[in-house]
Amino acid sequence: MNPPIAILGAGNGAHAFAGDLALRGYPVRVYNKFAHEIADLQNARGVTCEGVVAGFGALELITTDIAPVVANADFIFVVVPANAHAFMAEACAPHLRDDQVIVLNPGRTGGALEFRNVLRARGIKARVLVAEAQTLLYTCRLSAPARVRISMVKREVTLAALPACDTARVLERVNPLFPQFVAAADVLETGLDNIGAMFHPTTTILSVGRIESGAPFEFYRDLTPSIARFIEVMDAERLAVARAFGVRAQSACEWLARSYDGITGDTLYERIQSNAAYRGIAAPRSIDVRYIWEDVPMGLVPMVALGRIANVPMPACEGLAHVACALSGRDFWRDGRNARQLGIEGLNVTQVKTLIKGET
Amino acid sequence: MNPPIAILGAGNGAHAFAGDLALRGYPVRVYNKFAHEIADLQNARGVTCEGVVAGFGALELITTDIAPVVANADFIFVVVPANAHAFMAEACAPHLRDDQVIVLNPGRTGGALEFRNVLRARGIKARVLVAEAQTLLYTCRLSAPARVRISMVKREVTLAALPACDTARVLERVNPLFPQFVAAADVLETGLDNIGAMFHPTTTILSVGRIESGAPFEFYRDLTPSIARFIEVMDAERLAVARAFGVRAQSACEWLARSYDGITGDTLYERIQSNAAYRGIAAPRSIDVRYIWEDVPMGLVPMVALGRIANVPMPACEGLAHVACALSGRDFWRDGRNARQLGIEGLNVTQVKTLIKGET
Repeated sequence: MNPPIAILGAGNGAHAFAGDLALRGYPVRVYNKFAHEIADLQNARGVTCEGVVAGFGALELITTDIAPVVANADFIFVVVPANAHAFMAEACAPHLRDDQVIVLNPGRTGGALEFRNVLRARGIKARVLVAEAQTLLYTCRLSAPARVRISMVKREVTLAALPACDTARVLERVNPLFPQFVAAADVLETGLDNIGAMFHPTTTILSVGRIESGAPFEFYRDLTPSIARFIEVMDAERLAVARAFGVRAQSACEWLARSYDGITGDTLYERIQSNAAYRGIAAPRSIDVRYIWEDVPMGLVPMVALGRIANVPMPACEGLAHVACALSGRDFWRDGRNARQLGIEGLNVTQVKTLIKGET
Repeated sequence: MNPPIAILGAGNGAHAFAGDLALRGYPVRVYNKFAHEIADLQNARGVTCEGVVAGFGALELITTDIAPVVANADFIFVVVPANAHAFMAEACAPHLRDDQVIVLNPGRTGGALEFRNVLRARGIKARVLVAEAQTLLYTCRLSAPARVRISMVKREVTLAALPACDTARVLERVNPLFPQFVAAADVLETGLDNIGAMFHPTTTILSVGRIESGAPFEFYRDLTPSIARFIEVMDAERLAVARAFGVRAQSACEWLARSYDGITGDTLYERIQSNAAYRGIAAPRSIDVRYIWEDVPMGLVPMVALGRIANVPMPACEGLAHVACALSGRDFWRDGRNARQLGIEGLNVTQVKTLIKGET
């Protein structure tokens, strides 16, 4: 008998996870906070997939009541913007039981740390397994109500449990569902390879004048040389933090060459220009976008928190995050994944490593 | 007999000062570091003024040798980008004598402090008077070789000596030449009213994508709502520093209403939009501009240095300066007017005030 699965969330990725698993015969229940975001799913009683996964996946339950979704599940896939991870941890905490597997898809930077920190603060005794994926398994987009176009299922996505000594157990449980998940060394590896946090806020902020001019442009293909150079400076800071924690991170330049076909050039600018997959991706039309309100508090802020612990200067990342705060009128340092919210306040590098690795 | 005057510099403003004073019968000598920048003046043997000041002003000497320019002068007007103030201080130091009046036109933020700090470091004993003007007296632009169009002579420009107890003596000496100069309380007042440092780097940096797209746009009139809001956040930080030092500074909004006719609106965005004088001012075509390499190290950096002394948090100003460094590949914190270069390292607010006010 297939194990019951909880999907938390109702966006592009949540539709893909729910539809794909339901199509493969798993009993799937979907929880979402906002009723209006699941009304279409409730009407349809399932998800229609198209693309590389195709067919109608009937869902067992679609609800704004988290209790029957989480209490029943062997697997809990959290598929929401990283800003909602803490809320999801709070919401499911009272319903958790031993041996449930929780996977954040993806964790961005520090997702599992924040999630587990919330459970600890709530005094949750259930011995759940908490893990985070490095990126979203599916390349997908909602194409109509209760319908998702899955253009690709990634061949390989790294995953790490917190602590890392649990990663093998998580993969043993998850791989029958998703053989694509492979082990990362730990959640610092999955979290510090957050390339989106390098590209998204930078390009958005250095293009504020262009975005608000109203003339449409492409996000990647129209990215200019100085923006690319700025990203390289930030990227070097990110790699320095990774080195300080003994983590193997890849540069944005390396990542482009590994993730896409036909990448040429030495500089980041040239590589972005050479990426055919980037053609046609429109720049945002306003600065009230996930590129700011997710990538800064859930990407740059936790990277800087780690950098401070390791005494790695990160003026470009910090500077850009400060500018993002002033532009948005929000305090991402306070509301984002700072050291306290990650549960690593006051620790040194060795203590963070111990916390993340766990008992071996 | 009219007192001899030294003009240091050979840009728009230096041409205006030299031409105007020569036309009024003062013996004027011009020094500039680079020979190619004064070749036209040497050929013409003077400056032709047009606009509100008109005629040919014959110059006594135009040279790359500073000794005969400075040694001879009763007044030394320094009319160069603020980045060159330290160089000019070094260059004229050995030739200074008691009672010479040195005026930086303008000082930007901390010009007189840096200038005097260089003289002190060189052990100069000559008792010169050092002062800075808040802005350039002339609205002017070179219209042809050795020819400057002066579209306006400002009715009033504030000036402060360092220390402030010398301001009255400086004005007594300078006002026969320029009755437009009036007393500011001290060099913190002239330095913290540096509105250009609020407008210029902000608009340039938040428009990097637009500037490098190659499509021309107007610097002020196409400035977008989020950029204006960001300037207001930075401006509030600047005003907080001024308050901490007991200085009356005006907000960018107030400054617009006082400096231009016909300003309407409550927000900075509306006021900028309403300013007819801003029409037609083109945005820079690259980010290698004074808006970055003068306004950041000679504006934002000294403001932040003062803010740190007063424990005023300045995340927007600091953040933008960090972004400027990464974009330019330069360390404006090291090369700009930091506390050490201003000669105020290790001082507290009271000690800075004492230094600036002098003996009363």
